[in-house]
Amino acid sequence: MHTETHVPDRLIASDRVEGTAVYDPAGERLGTVERFMVDKASGQAEYAVLGFGGLFGFGNRHYPLPWKALTYDTGRGGYVVNVSKEQIEGAPSYETGEEPRYDRDYDARVYGYYGILA
Amino acid sequence: MHTETHVPDRLIASDRVEGTAVYDPAGERLGTVERFMVDKASGQAEYAVLGFGGLFGFGNRHYPLPWKALTYDTGRGGYVVNVSKEQIEGAPSYETGEEPRYDRDYDARVYGYYGILA
Repeated sequence: MHTETHVPDRLIASDRVEGTAVYDPAGERLGTVERFMVDKASGQAEYAVLGFGGLFGFGNRHYPLPWKALTYDTGRGGYVVNVSKEQIEGAPSYETGEEPRYDRDYDARVYGYYGILA
Repeated sequence: MHTETHVPDRLIASDRVEGTAVYDPAGERLGTVERFMVDKASGQAEYAVLGFGGLFGFGNRHYPLPWKALTYDTGRGGYVVNVSKEQIEGAPSYETGEEPRYDRDYDARVYGYYGILA
């Protein structure tokens, strides 16, 4: 009998976060984490950038999500975010090559949109 | 005259951290950050994994450095770590495919080796 207790790993490799699926609470796949934004000094992840990996439609738009809005679901092997696809569509986003500055105003705008305290 | 004040970006993209050079205080290039290890729940970066990207010698060994041991040097466009090449050579490391568990014992071992408080 296999009695070893499975302790989920506490840490995840950055290049495993990249490409991980993001789901809404109903289990619908919203997209993937393309990359995440880290505070250079503190090492704190502040945004996960949601993308759709496609060439058409939303494919070239990127949606920074507050890192705190994501919950890692070990069973699903992906992140769950408590927002709907419709909410994402109206969320702050940018096109490839037009990355935001991620200054305080932008923080307030994005965190405010998702109702998360920065 | 160009009078715009340059404010260095506070955030860095995860896929830009990966591949960034790591230097010793004298400016010698030690290797690159291959990936970094992030606490799934908090989003805090805890280790930067130093590698050498080569096929020979140290090429298949990976050296987890405490994230706090790294300082980002904007001028150099890379991280500076206050250790010598010789210290790195004796540091905790692993071979490809033998990733550590990153449990408390491992934290104590690595952070202790570099004299950093976990």
